[in-house]
Formats: sequence, C-alpha cells, structure tokens
Amino acid sequence: MNTIPGSVTSPQGFKAAGIAAGIKASGNKDLALIFSETPCSAAGVFTLNRVKAAPVFLCQSHLADGRAQAVVVNSGNANCCTGDQGMADARRMAAVTAEALGLKAEDVLPGSTGVIGVPLPMAVVEKGIRQIAPMLSPTGGDEAAEAIMTTDTVPKKVAIQVQIGGKTVTLGGMAKGAGMIAPNMGTMLSFLTTDVKMEPELLKSLLKGAVDRSYNMVTVDGDTSTNDTVILMANGASGVEVKVAADVELFRKALSELTLDLAKQIARDGEGATKFVTVRVTSARVFADAKTVALSVANSNLVKTAIFGRDPNWGRILCAAGYSGAELDPNRVRVSMVDIPIFANGTPVPFDKPKAIEALSARDVLIEIDLGDGSEGVEAYTCDFSYDYVKINAEYTT
Amino acid sequence: MNTIPGSVTSPQGFKAAGIAAGIKASGNKDLALIFSETPCSAAGVFTLNRVKAAPVFLCQSHLADGRAQAVVVNSGNANCCTGDQGMADARRMAAVTAEALGLKAEDVLPGSTGVIGVPLPMAVVEKGIRQIAPMLSPTGGDEAAEAIMTTDTVPKKVAIQVQIGGKTVTLGGMAKGAGMIAPNMGTMLSFLTTDVKMEPELLKSLLKGAVDRSYNMVTVDGDTSTNDTVILMANGASGVEVKVAADVELFRKALSELTLDLAKQIARDGEGATKFVTVRVTSARVFADAKTVALSVANSNLVKTAIFGRDPNWGRILCAAGYSGAELDPNRVRVSMVDIPIFANGTPVPFDKPKAIEALSARDVLIEIDLGDGSEGVEAYTCDFSYDYVKINAEYTT
Repeated sequence: MNTIPGSVTSPQGFKAAGIAAGIKASGNKDLALIFSETPCSAAGVFTLNRVKAAPVFLCQSHLADGRAQAVVVNSGNANCCTGDQGMADARRMAAVTAEALGLKAEDVLPGSTGVIGVPLPMAVVEKGIRQIAPMLSPTGGDEAAEAIMTTDTVPKKVAIQVQIGGKTVTLGGMAKGAGMIAPNMGTMLSFLTTDVKMEPELLKSLLKGAVDRSYNMVTVDGDTSTNDTVILMANGASGVEVKVAADVELFRKALSELTLDLAKQIARDGEGATKFVTVRVTSARVFADAKTVALSVANSNLVKTAIFGRDPNWGRILCAAGYSGAELDPNRVRVSMVDIPIFANGTPVPFDKPKAIEALSARDVLIEIDLGDGSEGVEAYTCDFSYDYVKINAEYTT
Repeated sequence: MNTIPGSVTSPQGFKAAGIAAGIKASGNKDLALIFSETPCSAAGVFTLNRVKAAPVFLCQSHLADGRAQAVVVNSGNANCCTGDQGMADARRMAAVTAEALGLKAEDVLPGSTGVIGVPLPMAVVEKGIRQIAPMLSPTGGDEAAEAIMTTDTVPKKVAIQVQIGGKTVTLGGMAKGAGMIAPNMGTMLSFLTTDVKMEPELLKSLLKGAVDRSYNMVTVDGDTSTNDTVILMANGASGVEVKVAADVELFRKALSELTLDLAKQIARDGEGATKFVTVRVTSARVFADAKTVALSVANSNLVKTAIFGRDPNWGRILCAAGYSGAELDPNRVRVSMVDIPIFANGTPVPFDKPKAIEALSARDVLIEIDLGDGSEGVEAYTCDFSYDYVKINAEYTT
C-alpha cells in the first residue's frame, strides 16, 4: 500500500475541474466538478445535525439506488436554511450538470459549503456549471480540491495505491475542513474515488466503517455542521472487482488509510491551529468508551488552550476523560503527554516540567490515555485553541 | 419574597468566617468556615465527573444521615487526584474542625477548590482551622464568600426572605464560579443555609430540583469539574417547619430564586466574559429537549465567539440546536436575538443588521429559541468567549 501525491483524479476513469465561477466575492475558485467516464457504485455518509442543507437531502435521495456518475460542489454558499427555494436550487444544480454531461439528474450529487441562509446565486452557478463541464481533465483533481476550500489555508487531497488480484488499484480523495466563516459554521466535505468495481451495499458499509475512525474522530470545536458530507464513488475502471473477503480486507485498509490521511489534514488546518493534536485512547473495555473519552478530551477547550500554552496539564486531560460519560476508574488510568508519563495509580507522576514544556513546543502533540480496562482503542485528532480561533470567529462580520 | 443583600449568615443561627490561612501564595483569603448553632438537616448535590476530589467522597459519606452542623472549605488547592493521602487529609480537615467546634467529625462537611494533583499543606490548613474557629460571627458570611474565590473576580452571595406560616424565614447562599487556574479546572461550589426546619429527604429533593434549573444550566466552557458541590443546611432557628404542601411550594420558589441568582452571578463572572448570555428555550415537547437545546447553544464556541464579536449569527444558533440531539423540526423553530426575530419558517427573517449589532453591544444578551412543539421550557446561562478566555487558560503556567 503506497500513499502518493494525488487527488480524486488519481484512480482511472475519473476527470475533474475547479474554477472561479463568481460565487465567492474574493474571486477564488468556488466550483468543483468530478465526473466518471462510466457509471459508479456510490455511497454517502451525511451530517447527523437535525438541520440539514438542501444538497444533503438531495444527495441522500440520489444515492437511494447506490449509483452516481458526477459530483458538483460549490463553495461560498452552503444552500442551507434556504427553504423550498434551496431544494429547488439544489435540484437545478444537479439538472444543469446532468444536461451538460449527458447524464440523468439522479446520477449527479450536489454539494455546497459556505454562508448559510442566503439563496444560491443560481444564474452564476448555472453559468459556472456550463463553463466547467468542457474543462474536465484527468489531471483536474488538484483544481477541484482548491475549489471546495472556504477558510482552509491549504487544499486537502491524497491518493493511495494497493495491489488487489495482481493489479494496482487506486483510491483518491479530497476534503475541506472545519473552517468557519460567519454566518456559517464549519463544514466537512470529502469526495472519494476509486477504480475498483464494488457492489453499492458493500461500498456503503466500508465507507461507514472508515468514516467512523477518521472523519468522525476529527474535532476542531465540537460543532457539527449542517452540510457534512462524505461521498465515495467506485467506477471499476481498473478491471478489478473487490468481492472476496481477502480483497475486501485489502481495500478496507486502503480506504481507512485514505480517509485517515484526509481527516488528519483537516485537523492540522483547523482554524487558528498552531499544533496538531492526537488523542490516543487504549485499553478501553469497549470501542464506544474509547471513542467517548478520546473525543471528550479532544473537544475540551481547557485541554486545547493548555496545549496552545505548552502546559503539561494532566489535570485537564483527566477531568475531560472523567466527565465524558464513559466507564472509567481513575485509579487504573494512565496518562502521558508527548511521551512523558504524567498520571498513574490515581496520582500525578513527577516529571521534569521545563523539559515537558520544551517537548510541547513541537508542532505535533500526542496525548495517550490508557484506561487499563480492556483492549479497545481509537485515536481522535484535533488542533490547539489559540487567539486566532476567537479572532476568526468573532471578528468576521463586525 | 424579597431578595436582599446577604450571604450564608443571613438566616438565623448561622455564623461564618473567612481568613487568609496561607494556602494561596497570593496571600488572599483561602479558608472559609460555616457553623450552625444547632444541628441541621443537610443535603448535597455533587459532580457527575467519574474523577472526584477527596472532599466530595467525604461529604457524600458524612451526609448519609442527612445531618450536618458545619462546612469547612479551602481555596487554592482542590485536594483532587491526591490518592489515599488526599482522603486522609480531607478526613483530617473534618476532624480538626469538629474538635475546634465541639462537634462530631461526621457533622462537618469539607470542601476544596484550586490546583489539583498537589497534596494539601496540612500544617497550614490545621493551623488555619484552629485560627478561624474562634472568629465565627453572625456577620461573617461576606468574608466566607471571599475565601472560596479562585479566579472569580467578585464574591457571589445573596439572601432571600419569604413569609411562611406568618413568619419570616430566610435563605442565604454563597458560590464560587467556573474560574480555572492551571493545572486546575473550573469548580463550582455553593453553600446554602436556611433557618426553616425540614426533613432531610424533602430538603434533598428540593435541592436537586433547584440545582437542575440553576447550577446545572450554567456553562462557561462545558468542562465539568472534579469538585462541583452544592450543600444546603436547614437549622430550624426561625421556628418555622416546612412540611405541608403550600409551605413547601413557598420554600421551593425561594430556593429556586436563591440558586438561580447565584448561578447567574457565576455565568456573569465567567473567565474572560464581557457579556452575560441567557439562552431561553420555549415550546419544547419535553423538558429534556429544552435543556439539551439550551445547553448545546450555550456551550457552542461558535455562538459564544459570535456574541463576543457582536455578530447576529442565527446560523450558528440553529446549527447548535440541530446537533444537540434533541427532537427538532427546523421548519417550526423560531429564533430571536436581543428581541430581534432572525429565523422562522425554515428561513432567515430579514433584519436591520447595524441595529442588531448595536443591540448586541449591551452587557446582557438574550437568545430565544421557540421549538414550536410543546409547552416545556428552560433557560441556560453563559458568557461570551473572548481572547481573555484563551489568555487565562493558555498562559498561566508557562
């Protein structure tokens, strides 16, 4: 299994493009199109927020048959809380794209991210779709990744190659992260492609498993967006069908690696982030406890400000683990930070504080929590909490 | 029912004191004592964090019989994550206090707040207890309120008088808020007194009800401390026994008012706070939904930074309501902010933005969320999220 520079066009048979259609006032790229030369099995995972954007509803509906052939995404406007007009606009985005590509509207999956509560500028969007369709290219994945950015400071993309059945198959993906622009909130979008052939039901099950341990373990501020969407399309262009257990396992690992890589890119680019933080929970009795503890610690403002301040503050870590709701015996918990044991047997472990502060100056910080109660584990990914987070989120509109 | 300036010594038969015993390096007051001339019915509500401080365990044990006569509290050290030594120290605090006051140790309730993971300086604490005991005074409530402060900028205290059975009874209280000093976390402590006579079981039930709608509805950053404690003692000195339903109702209202007043004082003094925020949820189908939505919005970093930035950002409010987990139909939800309707019928309500920004310059900000689904409601209290929160929590120890 090799991780290579790449994006959604790395797998065979996919084309993409990204352009500045004029939706963003900044003039930056704001419209992305992904297209497969042949119909794909497709699956999606969507936000659990009760408030959902129009394109989320439409994607869910278009994926009912497990098939799709194109994805059209705009940034700069989330098409959320836009009422009936929003649904009509999302449908129109799919219809115009289908017309431009010679597809059925049901095989186009629309996505949006950006300001919420403002109707899409449909004249601009429609013109953009007609403009981008002829620009599709087998090397257009990089431009597509740029076109879905909002407050992201870097595009997020990667590809993975793995040998299955004696042949090389490729998985590619792009994502945008938890950047928030008022009056918007962080939206996580990710579009994944692969050239294996796979039944939609299996694809969906594998995607869900991968998302649980990657995107669902990333937190920047605990706010769950209205637009979160992960889509995976498999077009079979490699000639490899993934069906038997051993192949499925190979593909599962590659898909996990792909989503984990993109998820980490998102956490690393969190708003105002100066550090990338991994919270590794081990020896949990059940997976759910590991996840609950890891996300509770990764979401704690107190832990995140301490890391920004290079403060080896085991008390805040233990506190966040304690209130997470997971089963936990403080006397069995061991905590270490940047490889320095700081808590064990219900009491602090003495450590060299100046040395710990120095270790915390690194860009990457690892927090390890051993619950001493079983064999399940998981990692959560986040960033530290700096002045710039407050600045970005407080000062945008006033 | 009258709210009056006062504290734990406002009810008859209670004495208190607060001194600088030398636990805090700053030389500020750090030891408080509350004493009732006669034995009291007593009840407590404690942190749900799985990691609990030693004095929390001891209070729970000493309250098993529903009786107490004194409270001893130190600030500057939380006596948490201090292992067996911590339990021994908490027991010693109670024993030394009991000896100085001529009580049984089981009738003394200890409390601690401050740095965690550091053993109590017991020589200093014991000397302090012997010094403070003879200083108990019927006007000592103010000093006691000062002595439990950590990063609080003002002491929190109030008293309420109400007529029951033709006589005036008094309830008094003090609290400390969600101020956090590294390596510590915010601890909410509150000690309440009253001169009515009441059975411990009834007292406990009324206290729990009051806490649910006051302290449990206050959030500064969503982190639940290891030391949170609310104690209520009733000594009967007014000669009024609260037993029949009508009297219980009068007392319940007064107790609710007392705890709500103190809870709001805590939110108003949140770390780095520039604004006091009330999130009022109405028309919920069930109380649990109202509470879940109110706390989700009050805990949202995005909502709190928007309020700091005077940004009428209904999108963030609706988003936080949506991911709260409560039942919610976005098309029935109405949101207003500082009395300006901003969202209804699934779409934004146009409003005068400069006027809204001006209204958001007020010290007190009200967010109203009508779920359009029933008749239950609740309020949550919080503060905005400013640069100073990050500063206080990132820069203390490094």
